Amino acid sequence: MSEFDLIAKYFTRQSRRSDVLLGVGDDAAVLQVSANRRLVAAVDTIVAGVHFPIGTDAAAIGHRALAVNLSDMAAMGAEPSWITLSLSLPSNDAQWLEGFSTGLFALADRYNVALVGGDTVRGPLSITIQVMGWVETDRWLTRGGAKPGDAIFISGIPGEAAAGLAAIQRSLPSAASELLTQRFLLPEPRVLLGRAIRSHASAAIDVSDGLLADLAHICSMSGCGANIELESLPQSHAMPGLFAAQECEQLALCGGDDYELLFTVPSERIVAVKAAIAAGVRCTPIGLMVEGSGVTCYRAGHAVPMTVRGYDHFAELR
Amino acid sequence: MSEFDLIAKYFTRQSRRSDVLLGVGDDAAVLQVSANRRLVAAVDTIVAGVHFPIGTDAAAIGHRALAVNLSDMAAMGAEPSWITLSLSLPSNDAQWLEGFSTGLFALADRYNVALVGGDTVRGPLSITIQVMGWVETDRWLTRGGAKPGDAIFISGIPGEAAAGLAAIQRSLPSAASELLTQRFLLPEPRVLLGRAIRSHASAAIDVSDGLLADLAHICSMSGCGANIELESLPQSHAMPGLFAAQECEQLALCGGDDYELLFTVPSERIVAVKAAIAAGVRCTPIGLMVEGSGVTCYRAGHAVPMTVRGYDHFAELR
Repeated sequence: MSEFDLIAKYFTRQSRRSDVLLGVGDDAAVLQVSANRRLVAAVDTIVAGVHFPIGTDAAAIGHRALAVNLSDMAAMGAEPSWITLSLSLPSNDAQWLEGFSTGLFALADRYNVALVGGDTVRGPLSITIQVMGWVETDRWLTRGGAKPGDAIFISGIPGEAAAGLAAIQRSLPSAASELLTQRFLLPEPRVLLGRAIRSHASAAIDVSDGLLADLAHICSMSGCGANIELESLPQSHAMPGLFAAQECEQLALCGGDDYELLFTVPSERIVAVKAAIAAGVRCTPIGLMVEGSGVTCYRAGHAVPMTVRGYDHFAELR
Repeated sequence: MSEFDLIAKYFTRQSRRSDVLLGVGDDAAVLQVSANRRLVAAVDTIVAGVHFPIGTDAAAIGHRALAVNLSDMAAMGAEPSWITLSLSLPSNDAQWLEGFSTGLFALADRYNVALVGGDTVRGPLSITIQVMGWVETDRWLTRGGAKPGDAIFISGIPGEAAAGLAAIQRSLPSAASELLTQRFLLPEPRVLLGRAIRSHASAAIDVSDGLLADLAHICSMSGCGANIELESLPQSHAMPGLFAAQECEQLALCGGDDYELLFTVPSERIVAVKAAIAAGVRCTPIGLMVEGSGVTCYRAGHAVPMTVRGYDHFAELR
């Protein structure tokens, strides 16, 4: 049973509460709290040896633990406000705590997010953050709103984070790998982008499992398919010097941890969305939503067989 | 460095956000969200072998993971609404998940609490729940409002949960130990009591670390001391058959895991609070807040030396 099956089987229930506007199964929950805004809540845990290599710099871990949660807010078009932190620590290491809290608060301050509560336990290194934020009542982004004909956009350069992890694991030191490892260690949550596209995009998800796997989530939740033009994928300048062309493509399509936004835009909204995001991170159109189901990749007009293999904690550890 | 020192040193910062009305350091945070109510948020993690014995029934673990969080809401006088769940599991055990989710949802349904989001990772058995709830704008309970002269009340019978854990650990099977182990395994969060005393109590905390240790938190946050009359402690009917008198008292004063409410009431509010709680769980006056600092226990009018020793995850494992 995969993580998704497990959640569906044991933890997805119709709530009796009418104030749960969106529950388990998207990037975050949307909760009704007042007439003019909605509370958005998400939780993510990162574990040493699973989500980051053992020995990763403490400040990077603090950054990452928050970044993955802010990324969920971004994928909803929400503005993050507050976090709670649960910290499982093998020992009470002052130097580690100093680094961790510095990395956490540096990112929190940038997005004006306050730590409002927490819990510490002794155990293997593991960090759970819950984030709460806000979205206006008129629109929030889900995985389920894409329609055939919508353009598919990706922010940034997919694959660079996974390439950075590979560079760390294979000890590939160079200026190029330095850029990539920073992309893995210090992912930038696309909060401002999420806010900018909130009124234009039909669906959105943050890329944590890999581009194809996360696009497949949009497909299944939206009840349609997706065609990707492989030639249109944004190309990394740093990856080709370290990885063969085929591995670069594999990392771009299946590598996780990018925390870029993958979103769909109705054709009549493309001009507006481009204007809204002009000043921010580059976003690239990479294909179209279509009738049907699942993701199909095309090269030079021909469908290319692809094994979509996202990251599943219950399928493998790394 | 204890858990409290650790939180204070690395994670307690003055927030720049004016909507954080109460931040790190109490049972929960209080957040401003609308004109007529406040969002209350708390997080608690329970770990196998630390907070419950390895091999504890999965349904009891599901109950407990939620109960300790609902208890934080109770201690604020708040009404719980939603939870998110982060589950670290060593393996994907269908029978365990069935039991866990059954125990969790049985308690959630009783308090009309909806699970709105979650995350699963593979790792040692550990459960983090964050709870969100509501309190009116006119008053919420903190640890910091007690004043000299206020009466100290405890709900239920302190020590029974710790006695239940001891009965499990020492394999003391009997009808009496059965009652006690249920008190440990299935603590009842005092949510209704918290709501009932919200407008009357000057301070409140839920007893997780032990009566004396948690009363010491009220003392330090309120800037005063507390005198306890040992004769007035509510007596368990189940404990004396299994434990010597001295151990019974030690369990009542220092045993954790009761999740009863410990609260203080100004003298002019005692009649009102008694009326408000008349139909619910029994609450017993056990002493008075006084000038000074720290907790002093009295027997037959004489101060009794006591070692206040609460449960600290960074001081010991059990």
